[in-house]
Amino acid sequence: MYKDTNKRSIVKGISWRIFATTTTVIIVYIFFGRLDLAIAAGVLETVAKVGLYWAHERAWVKIRWGRKKIEPFNLWFTGLPLSGKTTIADSVFKELKKLDIPLERLDSKDIRDLVPGVGFTREDRNRHMHRIGHLIKTLQNNSVSTVASFVSPYRESRKAIREMVKNNVVVYVKTDIETCKARDYKGVYEKAISGELKNFSGINDVYEEPQHAEVIINTDEKSVEEATVEIVKYIKKKYVR
Amino acid sequence: MYKDTNKRSIVKGISWRIFATTTTVIIVYIFFGRLDLAIAAGVLETVAKVGLYWAHERAWVKIRWGRKKIEPFNLWFTGLPLSGKTTIADSVFKELKKLDIPLERLDSKDIRDLVPGVGFTREDRNRHMHRIGHLIKTLQNNSVSTVASFVSPYRESRKAIREMVKNNVVVYVKTDIETCKARDYKGVYEKAISGELKNFSGINDVYEEPQHAEVIINTDEKSVEEATVEIVKYIKKKYVR
Repeated sequence: MYKDTNKRSIVKGISWRIFATTTTVIIVYIFFGRLDLAIAAGVLETVAKVGLYWAHERAWVKIRWGRKKIEPFNLWFTGLPLSGKTTIADSVFKELKKLDIPLERLDSKDIRDLVPGVGFTREDRNRHMHRIGHLIKTLQNNSVSTVASFVSPYRESRKAIREMVKNNVVVYVKTDIETCKARDYKGVYEKAISGELKNFSGINDVYEEPQHAEVIINTDEKSVEEATVEIVKYIKKKYVR
Repeated sequence: MYKDTNKRSIVKGISWRIFATTTTVIIVYIFFGRLDLAIAAGVLETVAKVGLYWAHERAWVKIRWGRKKIEPFNLWFTGLPLSGKTTIADSVFKELKKLDIPLERLDSKDIRDLVPGVGFTREDRNRHMHRIGHLIKTLQNNSVSTVASFVSPYRESRKAIREMVKNNVVVYVKTDIETCKARDYKGVYEKAISGELKNFSGINDVYEEPQHAEVIINTDEKSVEEATVEIVKYIKKKYVR
């Protein structure tokens, strides 16, 4: 949230004065046909009104009426591990930040670091989703939009998020599992295949494809840049006017 | 965060016009001594400038320059179980909400409901504090101030919060332990004394009194209303200008 500084009100006063006084001079000239007096009236007006305008601005800064709370949205990236969710979400976040809206980035890894010991069973994941939904809701209550990236493999937990938050936009990052495996720089797929990692979405646990995703990004067909453009366009059109 | 609606810009235009045109009419009258023409010029000016003012406002709504991010604060209520933290914090929250600032209420109970299974050992509590500090920080990044109430019995965890967040204001709700025990409507002191509850601050675990509290509320001497007035006054003076 921002508030107008004194400086802003003064500069606004000057910028307004430039074309307001021009108008006055023209009007006075039309009525009296005396350019010299019209200009003199304009000069006197300028001096008086920059100050008046400033006082008027400062008074309005204190008036609540007529200001609309910004509607927050939640961009929710879901997809297999290493599908590219975080990379695309980071890029989208960076672009959306430029719009000067209150915005927060939430990534699975960061949140799991904060709540150590959360497992990957269905129950653990669902409870974890509930916590994240609560965090997003808290931020939204304060007009803060979110860019969230979580594997979120179960339909029920994505549905829970949708029910908890406002203006939920699901982005399904659709990447072939073979591509994800090939990208396995963390070695997690390998560990899952060998059985060392349990409940690994796509290998020894299900990833339930979203059926109502607002945006589907097929990473075989689209670059990160193209995906970013598409998602930012969607958000701009629907939520940032 | 709020944005100006179109309506607000129009009404601002009219309110400005009323005294701006009065000034013009006076100036024109001083120069030309013809009240009829001065008024006619004023009428023409009014029609032209309400529209111009509106356009000027809408242009400035889009300009970032000269707006200052609101500085968030964190009010941190600490004290023995049943000392009255939550009651006073609720009352302060209600008052501060009237100031039209982005504000969030965080209470121990709500957060513990979200993260079930967090214990009450020193390690558990410290880790829990770290999570809450992170939440406050996330909110503060988006200009949201917080009113938090947590027993937070250890100096080290209160210090960790102070280091994580901005504008931290510790309110020590100082209540005699005998008073807290007498208030024991939840039966928690009874359970702690019988040994059923472990790590209960003030009974079988330490409550380390804060040494650097910005505000100390002695609940034997002050009513909830008086405490609220004192705390709100402090916040208004330091953080809400």
